[in-house]
Amino acid sequence: MFVAEDMYQLGSQRSAIRELFEYGKQRAAVVGAENVYDFSLGNPTVPAPDCVNETIRDLTQKLDSISLHGYTSAQGDIETRQAIADYLNKTYETAFSADNFYLTMGAAASLSVCFRALTTSPEDEFITIAPFFPEYRVFVEANGAKLVVVPPHTSDFQIDFEALEKAISAHTKGVIINSPNNPSGAVYSKETIRKLAALLTKKSEENGTPIFILADEPYREIAYDGVEVPYVTKYYDNTLVCYSYSKSLSLPGERIGYVIVPDKVTESKTVYAAIAGAGRALGYVCAPSMFQKVIAACVGNTGDIELYKKNRDLLYDGLTKIGYECFKPQGAFYMFVKALEPDADAFCERAKEQDLLIVSATGFGCPGYARVSYCVDYDMIERSFSAFEKLYQSYRKEI
Amino acid sequence: MFVAEDMYQLGSQRSAIRELFEYGKQRAAVVGAENVYDFSLGNPTVPAPDCVNETIRDLTQKLDSISLHGYTSAQGDIETRQAIADYLNKTYETAFSADNFYLTMGAAASLSVCFRALTTSPEDEFITIAPFFPEYRVFVEANGAKLVVVPPHTSDFQIDFEALEKAISAHTKGVIINSPNNPSGAVYSKETIRKLAALLTKKSEENGTPIFILADEPYREIAYDGVEVPYVTKYYDNTLVCYSYSKSLSLPGERIGYVIVPDKVTESKTVYAAIAGAGRALGYVCAPSMFQKVIAACVGNTGDIELYKKNRDLLYDGLTKIGYECFKPQGAFYMFVKALEPDADAFCERAKEQDLLIVSATGFGCPGYARVSYCVDYDMIERSFSAFEKLYQSYRKEI
Repeated sequence: MFVAEDMYQLGSQRSAIRELFEYGKQRAAVVGAENVYDFSLGNPTVPAPDCVNETIRDLTQKLDSISLHGYTSAQGDIETRQAIADYLNKTYETAFSADNFYLTMGAAASLSVCFRALTTSPEDEFITIAPFFPEYRVFVEANGAKLVVVPPHTSDFQIDFEALEKAISAHTKGVIINSPNNPSGAVYSKETIRKLAALLTKKSEENGTPIFILADEPYREIAYDGVEVPYVTKYYDNTLVCYSYSKSLSLPGERIGYVIVPDKVTESKTVYAAIAGAGRALGYVCAPSMFQKVIAACVGNTGDIELYKKNRDLLYDGLTKIGYECFKPQGAFYMFVKALEPDADAFCERAKEQDLLIVSATGFGCPGYARVSYCVDYDMIERSFSAFEKLYQSYRKEI
Repeated sequence: MFVAEDMYQLGSQRSAIRELFEYGKQRAAVVGAENVYDFSLGNPTVPAPDCVNETIRDLTQKLDSISLHGYTSAQGDIETRQAIADYLNKTYETAFSADNFYLTMGAAASLSVCFRALTTSPEDEFITIAPFFPEYRVFVEANGAKLVVVPPHTSDFQIDFEALEKAISAHTKGVIINSPNNPSGAVYSKETIRKLAALLTKKSEENGTPIFILADEPYREIAYDGVEVPYVTKYYDNTLVCYSYSKSLSLPGERIGYVIVPDKVTESKTVYAAIAGAGRALGYVCAPSMFQKVIAACVGNTGDIELYKKNRDLLYDGLTKIGYECFKPQGAFYMFVKALEPDADAFCERAKEQDLLIVSATGFGCPGYARVSYCVDYDMIERSFSAFEKLYQSYRKEI
């Protein structure tokens, strides 16, 4: 093959989620859009807060074209970095300065620069805790390291520390955590973060080199019932925060986010430089300039998260009433439902017969579960219950 | 070192151009901004055409938030790809379809996905022709291949074909061309492109595998005096076009561009898939969604290129009158000036004594020349001539 085989494979395999979404569009043409219950995608359905489009219009009127659309420095506009630092410091009692931030093109870029910056050998490993976002594997491997998966702890979707300890080796460079979690909806408790910090402190000492926490936090603000999402840098020094505004500001297509390299990180200036170098090597140049300015104006705003909570409550109550075993999401906008047979792939195929499009969690490293995305219309959830009921009854008949 | 040494080096070395720009800002504080003549950067100074900001305002009023700011498919919105295809077909008599386009985050991303997609072994080589944009080396090496530099042909800044033929090996995967050229201002003639096509056809046959042309074309529309910029895909089948709207629409900070994989490329669907896979591996996800829609509305518009031409004429006439030997730019917004001593680095250092900030072309692979960017204020060019005169006289005194 005269092209890179691995790249060809990545580009020609459609993701199972995308496949399901396309199937849904085809079915809608046949049976009508109102009769297809598509819970497949994690695309925010809450509009961006008004601040976003108002700021955009304002900027195009008031700022000259070169300042608005020109290159920024590679690390991002100082005003934007300072505004984010101020907001986080006020909200989480952290002590960041503008210099701790490297602006990126969203979470995929934030994670990628960290993997690239920290990988020093093809033996290097990053650990993820199932269930996990499958693109982690793509990003880790593309940057020359290996992904190691810790099995899920399905009773509460916190971390199985015994399994994690076993997974840590002399090659471990970092542990990726994603809380609030896609796809489980779990939020890691303070206790979980403290235990994780203690374990990684011990293991870093044993290895004689730091093991980082990569805190992938696009869902940070999407948490319900007052649950606290601990700010990880306060619990563990060698934490790199990977953030995206895709979900909080409903801007997934605009590709804007950041990495934080706190001062307490071991040789933090060296790590920051390596991250900036990785951004250069990966062809990022700078985060989109106009949206940097939008972030400076809108940091701290979010879309109407209450809408996601309403959806969660409706879906959770409806499905548990039918008889499904569900993990009640504390954050993000996904619900984890136990499949009605051991093979979740088969369960999700059977759901398709009812025009219910839900995603098997096998690809998330958590067999036996399905992910139901509730960033959808409230009305669609209501309409879907009769289909969920039929699916449930189809299994009862077999008993 | 517990971080990647190469990434650390990339992130901690400031580019010479950026360094000079920062020096200029410091000097401006001392001697006054009007007394510093900064010709260092290649940042467009012509505003974006009105279409851009008008479309942005219109979109934020009329399109719903999810459609405007949500994910697009990885290859980009079909409407945008079709609009670009239609525009190119009409303008250059090509026959592209929407499926030939993969939208990217600008030229750096366009080049990076091509390097990544085509590299199958660490022995693989991409050839660039001096003078060349120094980040080519970063992108090629970051994607696992080697950069091979062909020496410049300083009489006309076309290609030295004897030198190019020598540089091609069994490992050559592609030849990067950049016309109109940064930094020389040259435009490759039809004759040059035809000769290049003939040579690469012959060498591809010898190698038994295609050698690609990577046509890096951010300056395509910035050409003067009616000079034709040949559309490379019409002369050589295995051409991948790497385009960016940074210069034509003056949107360098917004990071938007594309790769074209024409149908005539060998196994074009395979190459396209590998490019899409590389985009996924490099963490690009999708090109910024709102600007995709801006491109669909504004394709074919440009900033006022006449302003660059005025600058070129003023600068060329002024410097040649003083006695400098200059290559008259046919395109882009840089002028190549022969240094007044063999060491261009020393020449540019001496220019700094007159607060003239010009870039040594040693880093572009073309010793003995300096690059003078004329994407600057017309008035600054006028004011700068006395300083250029003093610099010139300082060398005459020595004779």
